[in-house]
Amino acid sequence: MKPNEEEVCEGLENIIPLETKIAYIDGIEGILEYRGYKLKDLSSLSYDFVAYLLLYGKTPEKSELDNFTKELRANRAIDEGIEEIIHVCNFNVEAMDVLRTAISYMAHCDEDLNDNSPESNLRKGIKLIAKVPTIVAAFRRVVMIDKIIPPDPDLPRGANFLYMLTGKKPTPLEADLMEKDFIISAEHELNASTFAVRVAASTLTDLHSAIIAGIATLKGTLHGGARLAAMNMLDEVGSADKAEDFVLNAIQNKKRIMGFGHRVYKTYDPRSRITKNLVKQLAQDRGESKWLKIAENLEKTVIRELVEKRGKPIYPNVDFYSAVSYKYLNIPPQLATAIFVNGRISGWIAHYLEQQSNNRLIRPRALYVGEHHLEVK
Amino acid sequence: MKPNEEEVCEGLENIIPLETKIAYIDGIEGILEYRGYKLKDLSSLSYDFVAYLLLYGKTPEKSELDNFTKELRANRAIDEGIEEIIHVCNFNVEAMDVLRTAISYMAHCDEDLNDNSPESNLRKGIKLIAKVPTIVAAFRRVVMIDKIIPPDPDLPRGANFLYMLTGKKPTPLEADLMEKDFIISAEHELNASTFAVRVAASTLTDLHSAIIAGIATLKGTLHGGARLAAMNMLDEVGSADKAEDFVLNAIQNKKRIMGFGHRVYKTYDPRSRITKNLVKQLAQDRGESKWLKIAENLEKTVIRELVEKRGKPIYPNVDFYSAVSYKYLNIPPQLATAIFVNGRISGWIAHYLEQQSNNRLIRPRALYVGEHHLEVK
Repeated sequence: MKPNEEEVCEGLENIIPLETKIAYIDGIEGILEYRGYKLKDLSSLSYDFVAYLLLYGKTPEKSELDNFTKELRANRAIDEGIEEIIHVCNFNVEAMDVLRTAISYMAHCDEDLNDNSPESNLRKGIKLIAKVPTIVAAFRRVVMIDKIIPPDPDLPRGANFLYMLTGKKPTPLEADLMEKDFIISAEHELNASTFAVRVAASTLTDLHSAIIAGIATLKGTLHGGARLAAMNMLDEVGSADKAEDFVLNAIQNKKRIMGFGHRVYKTYDPRSRITKNLVKQLAQDRGESKWLKIAENLEKTVIRELVEKRGKPIYPNVDFYSAVSYKYLNIPPQLATAIFVNGRISGWIAHYLEQQSNNRLIRPRALYVGEHHLEVK
Repeated sequence: MKPNEEEVCEGLENIIPLETKIAYIDGIEGILEYRGYKLKDLSSLSYDFVAYLLLYGKTPEKSELDNFTKELRANRAIDEGIEEIIHVCNFNVEAMDVLRTAISYMAHCDEDLNDNSPESNLRKGIKLIAKVPTIVAAFRRVVMIDKIIPPDPDLPRGANFLYMLTGKKPTPLEADLMEKDFIISAEHELNASTFAVRVAASTLTDLHSAIIAGIATLKGTLHGGARLAAMNMLDEVGSADKAEDFVLNAIQNKKRIMGFGHRVYKTYDPRSRITKNLVKQLAQDRGESKWLKIAENLEKTVIRELVEKRGKPIYPNVDFYSAVSYKYLNIPPQLATAIFVNGRISGWIAHYLEQQSNNRLIRPRALYVGEHHLEVK
């Protein structure tokens, strides 16, 4: 399509720069598919299964999945060099900043950093998928001035991550919540960070660099950073009876309510449904309803005030109930956005591979609205 | 503009996601303006003048320029922490990888990393502009297993960079060539890396993260990495009498000739004209015509074969004569793309600031062309 000359497509809303076979979103019906499979169906499987599907474009046979899981678990450990980098990081930064730095450093150690063959990129990709949670957890341990806990190769991804944070094995429900959070966060078409990965990939930069562009972009509060902001908001609200006033006040002052609304979904985000159900189970199991009640009251008020009264399609998005679930998993806000990467890393790598397989440099134009023909005095 | 549904704008060619007052390119006439001033006029000024113009949107008064230069020079030095990071980097990687890692680390040390106010971003931006060349030069010294040379606050940006590489003050012609290379590389509208900076900025991520997304994206050979590739090509050709065959061979085998052709310019790139003239002076001054002759023979053959015989608008782009100039300045290919950043850093920061001043999340869609409704067996 050729747009009319000088017509600005703000935010590239509804502009389609490329074709993909990785994810499909129906923002009206609230449907999300990875590689043609409904997220709802995939969420009962393992993250490794989903990562395989995203990377290879097909579901694994049992032996393929076993090998893939084995390879991922064998690659979880980080070496002393990366631990050193984590140690010199500022304790007050977000885990996102540490992850960005550690992966940038990891790139240096890769024996064929600039080999862009699909085989090399798959090998590098598997290492990245395996190590990201280990880096995030190690940073948490360092901030706690405590020993880094090595990964447990007997535990699935979600359980192992929670184990590396505390040294305690999580309950099955906690492990399940973490695993599913990674699954629902794994992929979401051309969101800003995935698009940044593809813009970088389109110059034929190396995989690590492209993933770093993704991390750098996910950090913003209008994207993955909303998960951190939503956690802070839950703390700010503090109790269920204050939720209604918080929302009314935010609407009156035209403040953004973190974790609500989405560029693509004009209905309930299918990802947040999955998390919400699990959070309910965990809250009930623990007899600890505080965060769930705050969340439900926030949601109820937003839907009443914005959807019902004002006709705006502002529903909870993926970040909202993920933030609530992190409260139940005792995850500090400092880690919230980086945990998003624990999931999204597979989607980013799938998009890097897809971009490389049929590349065209992504290079738009800008409309110049400044002066011309000025002369230096 | 609303494109027809499901129409794919490949590579976003000619799509305009935003308005800018920073740069104007006329790709047909071969005109490049920064903030309304012709690049040709700006190239007789200092890099600091150009950086001020890009950042503040106006030319500086004399006292403003003096203060700006003073501030930049005062911020050139890097601390021990950054030197440590450079020391642990792999000596075989590109300086780009080191720059990406060092800036990611630098972010941690910034006292208000996540303060996105314009004042804070300007302060951080000035530090980045000042320190980037120091990091690149320090890496070179470390690779040479030699002492890092601190910046000389009495030297302009170009001269100081060359001084930090070798410890010797460059001749006026060498210093001029380096300074102008930074100026012509400073800004170029929505090229892929600048676009990556704006995509990142549009999520409200911090300045350092957005600049890192730019570095990650510039590295690819279809973008800034072409400068490194062009240097390698000059070595591969080796002598002027082999240039014609090299081009004919490349055309026959449908191989890309590095440093030629551009998405936007359909005529001679105005940036390469400036560098070519300076390279000619330096070659004459030195009585050393080897690289210039190779370059001229490559150019002549490409223009004869592709422009004149086949009607394709394939002219030398900015990377070609920059690569030639780096041969004359004894710059190793390992540094080529990072030296691009020595220039481009100001443009990136200007775009970050502009994006933040009138933000809309950049979030396109993809056209899904895979299967639907699959069921997990």
